[in-house]
Amino acid sequence: MEERTEIQDLGEFGLIDYLTRNIEIQNASTVLGVGDDAAVIDHFGKQTVVSTDMLVEGIHFDLMYTPLKHLGYKSVVVNLSDIYAMNATPTQITVSIAFSNRFSVEALNEFYEGVYAACEKYGVDLVGGDTSNSQKGFIISVTAIGEVTPDQFVKRSTAQKGDLLCVSGDLGAAYLGLTLLEREKKIFLESPGVKPDLENQTYIIGRQLKPEARKDIIEFLQQENIVPTAMMDISDGLSSEILHIAKQSNLGVVLYEEKIPIAQESREIALKFGLDPTACALSGGEDYELLFTMKQEDYDKIVLNEQISVVGYMADISEGAHIITKGGNKFKLVAQGWNAFKQ
Amino acid sequence: MEERTEIQDLGEFGLIDYLTRNIEIQNASTVLGVGDDAAVIDHFGKQTVVSTDMLVEGIHFDLMYTPLKHLGYKSVVVNLSDIYAMNATPTQITVSIAFSNRFSVEALNEFYEGVYAACEKYGVDLVGGDTSNSQKGFIISVTAIGEVTPDQFVKRSTAQKGDLLCVSGDLGAAYLGLTLLEREKKIFLESPGVKPDLENQTYIIGRQLKPEARKDIIEFLQQENIVPTAMMDISDGLSSEILHIAKQSNLGVVLYEEKIPIAQESREIALKFGLDPTACALSGGEDYELLFTMKQEDYDKIVLNEQISVVGYMADISEGAHIITKGGNKFKLVAQGWNAFKQ
Repeated sequence: MEERTEIQDLGEFGLIDYLTRNIEIQNASTVLGVGDDAAVIDHFGKQTVVSTDMLVEGIHFDLMYTPLKHLGYKSVVVNLSDIYAMNATPTQITVSIAFSNRFSVEALNEFYEGVYAACEKYGVDLVGGDTSNSQKGFIISVTAIGEVTPDQFVKRSTAQKGDLLCVSGDLGAAYLGLTLLEREKKIFLESPGVKPDLENQTYIIGRQLKPEARKDIIEFLQQENIVPTAMMDISDGLSSEILHIAKQSNLGVVLYEEKIPIAQESREIALKFGLDPTACALSGGEDYELLFTMKQEDYDKIVLNEQISVVGYMADISEGAHIITKGGNKFKLVAQGWNAFKQ
Repeated sequence: MEERTEIQDLGEFGLIDYLTRNIEIQNASTVLGVGDDAAVIDHFGKQTVVSTDMLVEGIHFDLMYTPLKHLGYKSVVVNLSDIYAMNATPTQITVSIAFSNRFSVEALNEFYEGVYAACEKYGVDLVGGDTSNSQKGFIISVTAIGEVTPDQFVKRSTAQKGDLLCVSGDLGAAYLGLTLLEREKKIFLESPGVKPDLENQTYIIGRQLKPEARKDIIEFLQQENIVPTAMMDISDGLSSEILHIAKQSNLGVVLYEEKIPIAQESREIALKFGLDPTACALSGGEDYELLFTMKQEDYDKIVLNEQISVVGYMADISEGAHIITKGGNKFKLVAQGWNAFKQ
């Protein structure tokens, strides 16, 4: 009998590891390949950074509550976020879409309006793509290309023991926005007459439907002459991403619950939903904030920036990965990030 | 009432024109954007070429007769073909896939074996990608990156009046391979006991399931110091591609039916199916041969290369686009290329 391994047994990262286990680099221009936010390609004077993401209707988004323009915007932003997470500047994108017959030209145009809005805001050029029919649903594949001064790109694997662990912005809101939208969808489907209750919740809905990439943080770090020792963007939830940096850097990590930045709006909604705000930040995903480590001596340079929170530090690998709760308890940090294979 | 334009009313190229009508380039490094086989990005010393394609199960391929390894190989090759069609050398690719739960890890591994086989053959590195679930079917998005000596890239829009029109290899076989596979599939579905009759038809099946990109032609042209005046790859059928070059170069064109290269195997099978071999070459698609124009004085350099056929010449725009048949008749050339929106 033929062997059959279920994909959910491996998980997304296990699957990627498995499928890329035998790659051998053939081109001297390939500085960094699979396994980080983006690849790095050397082009004599600047290095090119490449990242790609696929978004599938019914898996990554629900058109029942996602305006197409927002979807176009978000599709670009999530890729740019990967480029910034390399400490690079995005310059070009390609956008490919496949769509079923239910989409009109006007619908696709709305999607592209969002794409172009993101291009304009972040100063990138749309330089190519592909359009095709699909048998079902809407599928989007975006590739972003950026540039970086040689060897200024920042990987996930280069954090050092004692480095400070930092997070931009606030966390958990995108997940709470999704939870709210899913709840209102359910109510609508059960009782189509009921008006959705989205009052005073624009912050969390905006964080879900129209996230931004943290270009400003990269610019701030450059102004302050801070090169993070490791960096990635937070797309799967804080705990999952912290564990990536710790594992790839061969280090332990200590995270302080009370330091995790969570917006007041998020706390209130979490309470209303009976959710733990910390759990939303740790496992929620889709915040597209930056997670980075830096040398302790750079602390003075960031302390006044309200958009950057120090949430912990990198420790020896023998210490493992832990979170210290507000109550002073110490728990092992586990990745319960959003996993596209386990919905 | 809201306006609704059906996508098939515009066609793929009309749709792309429509969706990209307002693009303004923001980065000096964007040398060439949307509208050719690939984009060109300047990186101080070399220029970077980028191309992307999306392949959707049930639209572009049928897993009933497409081995996953071949599909992986073909997914890469069709993108590399676009890079070669710019007179560039592919160096890196990203591969994103979405798949339903019916796929096992072993199945995905087979697909990647084909991806890696193409990477090895063409000397490119897989540097990134994304994996995701889909609601239905298998979707593949590949982006290829290549490099070219500054300003040696070849566009579609730069053919000159009097230039020779050339084609590599032979045409129509991939379409005949598809026709054969579709016929055998139909027979199999109607009478599962009947063994498929694929004897002596390996050539056309191979051309459909495992096409190659014409790296050798690009290398030959470089050796001979020939820079084509215009070039593209033949993915939609010869007539459609010739019309692209003529329209974008603002020229007319004359094509000679008797000069169109068609393999003996293809002629025999076409006859058997009651198809006109010329029609298969003109409208069949998926041959991934190169179509290029070059100066008449370069003719001596290519005349001994059996892999290059001169099929016509570029004329003044006032002459229109015509094919001269074997019988000496002159017909207007029309694009009936394979159109993913009109299946």
